[in-house]
Amino acid sequence: MDMELPLISLQRMPVYLNYLKSMPAGTRFVSSGHIAEALGLGEVLVRKDLAFTSAVGRPRVGYSVEELIAAIEEFLCYNGKRNAVIVGYGALGKAILGYGGFGYYGIDIVAAFDSDSEKTGVSSTGKPVYGIAEARAEIPRLNAKLAIICVPAQSAQEVADMLIESGVKAILNFAPVSLKTPEGVEVRQIDVAANLAILSSSIK
Amino acid sequence: MDMELPLISLQRMPVYLNYLKSMPAGTRFVSSGHIAEALGLGEVLVRKDLAFTSAVGRPRVGYSVEELIAAIEEFLCYNGKRNAVIVGYGALGKAILGYGGFGYYGIDIVAAFDSDSEKTGVSSTGKPVYGIAEARAEIPRLNAKLAIICVPAQSAQEVADMLIESGVKAILNFAPVSLKTPEGVEVRQIDVAANLAILSSSIK
Repeated sequence: MDMELPLISLQRMPVYLNYLKSMPAGTRFVSSGHIAEALGLGEVLVRKDLAFTSAVGRPRVGYSVEELIAAIEEFLCYNGKRNAVIVGYGALGKAILGYGGFGYYGIDIVAAFDSDSEKTGVSSTGKPVYGIAEARAEIPRLNAKLAIICVPAQSAQEVADMLIESGVKAILNFAPVSLKTPEGVEVRQIDVAANLAILSSSIK
Repeated sequence: MDMELPLISLQRMPVYLNYLKSMPAGTRFVSSGHIAEALGLGEVLVRKDLAFTSAVGRPRVGYSVEELIAAIEEFLCYNGKRNAVIVGYGALGKAILGYGGFGYYGIDIVAAFDSDSEKTGVSSTGKPVYGIAEARAEIPRLNAKLAIICVPAQSAQEVADMLIESGVKAILNFAPVSLKTPEGVEVRQIDVAANLAILSSSIK
């Protein structure tokens, strides 16, 4: 993949996948127009998204459903499986650890860490929850290069520093604070409150 | 405010507010350079962000801390208080209902709704959790124009339709599905898995 994939295209991929898998058994071909109509998207958009995968549509026939499913799945895992960890096993950390939608992208959340020893043990989905002191040993052992920060704002920078020292190369940060990270470490922030505020300001 | 505010600026506002409120008691003035250094941001960036508020810095003196706090607070609530509701009181809905960071933006999450009658009652933070059948009556009564969808993908469109019929004008959607909404209804999607996938793909 040479072109950089927009987030918006990437997040439609599981939507396509869900749709294709929900088609009646025995459906062999599907056109981009059909997918577009079913999902309320533009046909050009659908074609552009699917062009990021290896699937090739044929004129007047469309895509082979089976091939298209395989191509999207391959595309979503194109850089292989990755292990991720969560730091902060509060309500949000728990919700993310329990969410099943990461598998589509080849991401496995393998463990969580929390500073509260009462929260350690095993999650309802069978994942280990360790004390934060074990992170420096466990993260390299788990080969987790990806981490999700779900701690309060005042602890987020300290947690990020520890993660980076433990080999983490990319961080999804839910704490409402700008993290300082060295070059070579990618950070994305999801600020739920700020997103809601932007929406609120759009209401006339 | 004539210029459209970027999300990234908006989400720094609570960061500034936290910092200003954490300054030693009696601190009367603060410069943009000082704020920038403390938070690891560029000084020009800080000045641009603060220019969205009504605060005016004075040369060689900086901003009055008290005035700047008031200006940011006023700015964040500039279109008044808004009530919001959550639909889907699973792990994510629970985490969001329990999160205290919306107040900064003048947003009050006043209730949650769920299709599972076993989840109805009162949340740990004292907010009512209603059955989904009550939404059409409760949402207008609560004057909630803002809603957060935390239901599974397959129910999200149906929930969105119901919310819009109940007077909701803006939706924050956590379900991994593209919602079809009429003109005049704003939607923002937060797809945690897709964000994580983008980060994953950035790892060399």
